[in-house]
Formats: sequence, structure tokens, C-alpha cells
Amino acid sequence: MKPIGYIKSEFTRKKDLPRQSVLNPHNKAFIKIQPEYVQGLKGIKKNQHIVIIFNFHKSNSSPLQTVSWRDNKETGVFNTRSPNRPNGIGLSIVEVIDVSDNCLAFKGVDMLDGTPVLDIKPYSPDLNPNNI
Amino acid sequence: MKPIGYIKSEFTRKKDLPRQSVLNPHNKAFIKIQPEYVQGLKGIKKNQHIVIIFNFHKSNSSPLQTVSWRDNKETGVFNTRSPNRPNGIGLSIVEVIDVSDNCLAFKGVDMLDGTPVLDIKPYSPDLNPNNI
Repeated sequence: MKPIGYIKSEFTRKKDLPRQSVLNPHNKAFIKIQPEYVQGLKGIKKNQHIVIIFNFHKSNSSPLQTVSWRDNKETGVFNTRSPNRPNGIGLSIVEVIDVSDNCLAFKGVDMLDGTPVLDIKPYSPDLNPNNI
Repeated sequence: MKPIGYIKSEFTRKKDLPRQSVLNPHNKAFIKIQPEYVQGLKGIKKNQHIVIIFNFHKSNSSPLQTVSWRDNKETGVFNTRSPNRPNGIGLSIVEVIDVSDNCLAFKGVDMLDGTPVLDIKPYSPDLNPNNI
């Protein structure tokens, strides 16, 4: 896998990160897209929601069970959003503020500055079964 | 990246796949988890929704713009869910039917038989900003 871009964010330390993007809905950040992938942004518009798939590049190799912050119980890593996981893939749904040239601005950041971005997909309510 | 498991699905040809998992809500399929990752399933329960992150292993290298089936317009690959994309990462939200040993049964399959699974995360309405 090769990064298609990198996050530019105010967060440089893991301990300052919000747990989820919805807990930090207003803070602005950016994806700086690598020049060779800029064409792939065509059609992404202001106020649209997107899924950002990224690499937890500062995380450790994972234990397979961890204590969830939600209920303090030991749970399998695939039942948590812990950054310490096999393959280190992260996922956030955020709102686009602006797209220009190689820069996509968004709000709802929960990623560290310098995070490698692996993919961007449109977020659609169709993705959301039963509207849960 | 190393697969944590593989999809066992009725779909063996790309042309038979539904476009999205919500278009095929009842068909049952399975993730066969590799033995070394089975502990990571702890806590995943029947009727829960999960996000499956997988590899489009039968897709071609990607053009960066493609014609969307939604509106027949040329659009950037990051504004589509096309399987032909840089890094070939796929994402589906599905409902768990059962978990036992190394096998997670789910409904809403839109993946080919043999698809490598890279990650599983719990799907939570918290992920869904503004309940869109």
C-alpha cells in the first residue's frame, strides 16, 4: 500500500487526540494529496461527508484483546476502534469544508499530523443499513 | 498488510456481485478468521453491525477518474466506491448473524468468495455524524 496523501492536523501527540471524530466536530484539518492522485478528487464537494481510511502510523503492534474505554471490559480488538490492531487501519467519517488543488479541508479530525491516508470514499446513507 | 481472514461467499464472479451490501441484505456469508486472530473476535455478538475492511483482490489497477453508475458522469475515484482504486481497499457495513470459533456469519455480502479481510471494526451510530 502506498499513501495517497497525508493529514495536516493540529494534533502532534497521541494523548491530545479526541477518541472519535464526532467528539471533535468543528476542528479543521487537511488532507494533502500526493500530486499523482489529485485527479481522483474530482466531484468531491463542500459539505459532503467522506470516509477517510488511514494508517495508524504511530501505533504499536497489537494485543488481540484490550480493555474498552466504553465499559472497562476486556474485548477483542475487532470489537473496538483501538489504534493498536493488526494491519493498523483507521477509519473516520468527516465533513468536507473545501477542495482546492491538492488540498482537501475537512472538519471532525481525530488523526495525528502526518498520518498517511490510504483511501477516500464518499459517505452515503446507503452505506448505513437500517439507518442505525 | 496481512489478511486476518477470508470471505466465504456465494459470489465467485464479479458480474454477479450486488453493487452494495445494502442491495443484498439477506444473503448470508462468512468470514473465516485465521487461527492466530480468533481471540480478536471476543465480544462481537449476533445482530450487531460491523465494518469489514477488505482487499479488492480481483480488481485492476485504477484509472483515477471513472464513470459513476449513479449519474453516468466522470468523477474522481475517491468520490466513488469503485473496486478499481489505488490501494484496492473495500469497506462494507454488515449485520452479524453468528460468531463461533473462527467463523463469523453475516448478512449483506457484496464480496467475492476468497476476498482477503484486513480488519473488522464495530459499527456504531457514533461513527455517523449528524445521523445522515
